Amino acid sequence: MTRKELIHQIKKKKSFLCVGLDTDIKKIPTHLLDYEDPVFEFNKAVIDATKDLCVAYKPNIAFYEVLGSKGWDTLKKTIDYIPKDIFTIADAKRGDIGNTSKMYAQTFFETYSFDSVTVAPYMGKDSVLPFLEFSGKWVILLAATSNKGGDDFQYQKLEGGNLLFEKVLQKSLDWGDSENLMYVVGATRPEVLKSVRKIAPGSFLLVPGVGAQGGSLEDVCAFGLTPEVGLLINSSRGVIYSGGNSLDFATKITESALEIQQEMEKILLEKGIINA
Amino acid sequence: MTRKELIHQIKKKKSFLCVGLDTDIKKIPTHLLDYEDPVFEFNKAVIDATKDLCVAYKPNIAFYEVLGSKGWDTLKKTIDYIPKDIFTIADAKRGDIGNTSKMYAQTFFETYSFDSVTVAPYMGKDSVLPFLEFSGKWVILLAATSNKGGDDFQYQKLEGGNLLFEKVLQKSLDWGDSENLMYVVGATRPEVLKSVRKIAPGSFLLVPGVGAQGGSLEDVCAFGLTPEVGLLINSSRGVIYSGGNSLDFATKITESALEIQQEMEKILLEKGIINA
Repeated sequence: MTRKELIHQIKKKKSFLCVGLDTDIKKIPTHLLDYEDPVFEFNKAVIDATKDLCVAYKPNIAFYEVLGSKGWDTLKKTIDYIPKDIFTIADAKRGDIGNTSKMYAQTFFETYSFDSVTVAPYMGKDSVLPFLEFSGKWVILLAATSNKGGDDFQYQKLEGGNLLFEKVLQKSLDWGDSENLMYVVGATRPEVLKSVRKIAPGSFLLVPGVGAQGGSLEDVCAFGLTPEVGLLINSSRGVIYSGGNSLDFATKITESALEIQQEMEKILLEKGIINA
Repeated sequence: MTRKELIHQIKKKKSFLCVGLDTDIKKIPTHLLDYEDPVFEFNKAVIDATKDLCVAYKPNIAFYEVLGSKGWDTLKKTIDYIPKDIFTIADAKRGDIGNTSKMYAQTFFETYSFDSVTVAPYMGKDSVLPFLEFSGKWVILLAATSNKGGDDFQYQKLEGGNLLFEKVLQKSLDWGDSENLMYVVGATRPEVLKSVRKIAPGSFLLVPGVGAQGGSLEDVCAFGLTPEVGLLINSSRGVIYSGGNSLDFATKITESALEIQQEMEKILLEKGIINA
């Protein structure tokens, strides 16, 4: 999916919500365990319940990998079930030397047809480029993550005054551009979004950490929103487990997603990005 | 496998060779393509040909992932086929927020029974700890990798004078110890091993980049070898593809591994780590 199409979808749906499919078989409604593939049944219900309210889905690959080869079949069915006008993110945090990164890129872009994959920057340029060489696909590079451990290295001050995550942004802008490169920036540190926007004013940011991890949508938008939106806000647990163990869990999931979408619509209207 | 057992195996086999199972279906002898699972047939042949000459196997997970769920079945068969007294490394370079890292740890330590997994440090302490909580298992943390892109961030100088990879070593030594934490340090920069040994004198290092990537075994040992060995030297392409497309490719693989083992034996003898 191109940047233009993504922005079109956001304006059409009045939403920049990404729903994280961190589906844990131990947390889904127990009546689904009677199905042959309970994780897929759950994902299907989540997708049906939210597809008009979100513009992206982000399966967290760890949750599928842990189930062995069956988990990868479930992932395949899930990605095939997602409507084609919704952006898909393999949250895989891969990255390795060139010939290996190329294999990871083939995995997510060809074997599984994702639009994008999250990539860790530690191994540098030649670990990221192989992903960027796939036309029409996106890299979402880790910049400043939402977890406490993000402090350990991402906020280390370099000689010259930059923090490490700022250096990651600066360097990587030579590798790709706002048409094929986004960044992960956690919602738990809205002030960081300000310095991200100085370096990467036009890039889309994937922002996890709203909801369960404590970040606020309003704060994130105050610092991160651009005239072309530039944000995908991810919610995983806050949406997909909102229905608990009830039989009509899907109704509650729609309500949770709708609540976020409405807040987003209000912000998009206020900023004049969409019209009433 | 414990550190003690690993050192015992090294002394017994007079080898600290790790064979990388970066098995690419496009590069294996064509006569194997007639089998139902050509990649497994190849791995089996490699293991049979090298198991007395190496102390570790390192499947590169990307090469299995790219084949979809079948690739994970092949990985499972491969790991089950490796003799139990040989150390196994999932070269996966994972790392994510705590609950996700825990899933990745379960994947490689429980679903697939590996002894160790390679982990990327960018997300910090809480992304690494979940792996270290598995008793008897190991984290192999990326420190200074062998690729050119390693320069981009790992060699950034921090305020205070350390390079980033040195900070990774220093901080992580509070998270684990030489009984459950190793580091990836590329062979292509032997001088780096010197500064690694100042910070982590007793830790095992997994050293890729000997052979195909240009590093020399002698140089690596000069700077990295300790009285308790402290090195696992990986060779992937240089061993597993040495037999080309011939019917008796396995004979050539044994010869390639033997050549490295003999060089290692010589070094271990010279340093008085083993006796003649």
